[in-house]
Amino acid sequence: MDNIIMKGAPAAAELAAGLKKRSEKLKALETVPCLALIRVGEEAADISYEKGLLKRAEEAGVTVKKYLFDASAGKEEILEAVRDINRDETIHGCLMFRPLKDRTAEMEVSELLDPKKDVDSMTLRSQARAYTDGSEGFYPCTAEAVMELLRYYHIDVRGKKAVVIGRSQVIGRPAAMLLLNSDATVTICHSKSNGLKDICRSADILVAAVGRAEMIDESYLGEGQIVLDVGVNTNAEGRLCGDVKESAKQELASAYTPVPGGVGSVTTAILMKHVIEAAEKGRGIYNE
Amino acid sequence: MDNIIMKGAPAAAELAAGLKKRSEKLKALETVPCLALIRVGEEAADISYEKGLLKRAEEAGVTVKKYLFDASAGKEEILEAVRDINRDETIHGCLMFRPLKDRTAEMEVSELLDPKKDVDSMTLRSQARAYTDGSEGFYPCTAEAVMELLRYYHIDVRGKKAVVIGRSQVIGRPAAMLLLNSDATVTICHSKSNGLKDICRSADILVAAVGRAEMIDESYLGEGQIVLDVGVNTNAEGRLCGDVKESAKQELASAYTPVPGGVGSVTTAILMKHVIEAAEKGRGIYNE
Repeated sequence: MDNIIMKGAPAAAELAAGLKKRSEKLKALETVPCLALIRVGEEAADISYEKGLLKRAEEAGVTVKKYLFDASAGKEEILEAVRDINRDETIHGCLMFRPLKDRTAEMEVSELLDPKKDVDSMTLRSQARAYTDGSEGFYPCTAEAVMELLRYYHIDVRGKKAVVIGRSQVIGRPAAMLLLNSDATVTICHSKSNGLKDICRSADILVAAVGRAEMIDESYLGEGQIVLDVGVNTNAEGRLCGDVKESAKQELASAYTPVPGGVGSVTTAILMKHVIEAAEKGRGIYNE
Repeated sequence: MDNIIMKGAPAAAELAAGLKKRSEKLKALETVPCLALIRVGEEAADISYEKGLLKRAEEAGVTVKKYLFDASAGKEEILEAVRDINRDETIHGCLMFRPLKDRTAEMEVSELLDPKKDVDSMTLRSQARAYTDGSEGFYPCTAEAVMELLRYYHIDVRGKKAVVIGRSQVIGRPAAMLLLNSDATVTICHSKSNGLKDICRSADILVAAVGRAEMIDESYLGEGQIVLDVGVNTNAEGRLCGDVKESAKQELASAYTPVPGGVGSVTTAILMKHVIEAAEKGRGIYNE
């Protein structure tokens, strides 16, 4: 099928160019947008993500201050780092690699973060923003990246049937809420849904956020659909892949995001946007 | 059609009986569950609701402390009442009749309330509870009443297609989230949805929360559906009616809530449950 491949790179580049200008303006006011990064241990996935993030930060004019901990670090050390970040006026946002091994510690650390610096939706308050009409906090980056890709590729969701597979607090639910806020009719389905394939096939816009390598094959897709594949998984051959089979997207979708090179490429640009917004708000500048 | 009329009264009576026992236990510990009620002006609808609420409070063993204001009362007066309620350890929950004429004041008053006393989901934090996995706050009463009726009438929602019409912060969205938390596949639709009738007809469980008198007629319903009608409206003849035509429910639904006498009858019982839970938590008792 002749389809549009919704690559993330051009959308991210457009975003980065706009962000660069905004960070220049802030620097003229002697504010350098700064992201604090908390990493516990040396997970390969974290380090690889960090590399991409540092590149993106440089493009956007954001500095990164690292707080690195040994895998064996105790909760109190990490909490102290968050207190430090909350106090430090030169830091505007904070990203912590998650999950932590100690989930109770993770919850406690997350909730301690100043909501104004919660650029990666660690706190419940930030997570709830897409759901309530609250103005505090930032949307989860991946969900916002989905909306940014739809916007960049001129796909109007208003009135359309959007089906989100997956109901996680970081992706499925907020993606559903942002689609709803843009006037889509939104269905949230999950592993317990009866007739999942039929529901997926009935969608105009399908958002896959299940986190299972290539689970969604041809039998779930309807011809001409728009497919946003949020999954980042490793398949049986050890290669990076999405939740949806690439061949199925290629065959049936009218437009789709590839994996790799789709939603994931936009997510870090959105994170930088949040850092710059946080820095702007600190200076009384409101761009949105 | 031979159908089940899901009346609210027996569900509410069962709830009230359980609540009475819980409030007796609290009284034995010298804690009398108490609801503060803030009313501004003398709106007929508020006064009528208040009457039902006082009766329900008495049944459940909850005392009600009224804070009454003249329709012309200023924001500062109402804020002072909320501060008083927050401070007063003998008050466990607070209900304010909304909307206030001054919506900015309403927002400010709402957010001032101690989340622990927010039994009617005035604060964003309470509203977000159904969406996040937060444990603080209480679900919006009407959305919880919908779930209570489904439970009372032994309707299992797991895996089923639930369609919610309406996306308000107090009913549509939280009802959708509670259904999702109970493993339904949930679709949220609204005035901008294309093909609304088809979507409604495809539901196993239809929740109408649009707030428009008898808008949903036969053409929206599928045979054998379960219909929960949250609307409380006045029709052209000046009679109380739901969002769904009674004749359509009667003709097509396998089970449905009537209006009046359906969801509305359970809502105040849920409110009393919240007051008692708040009082219990204050004494370190956790029933759920």
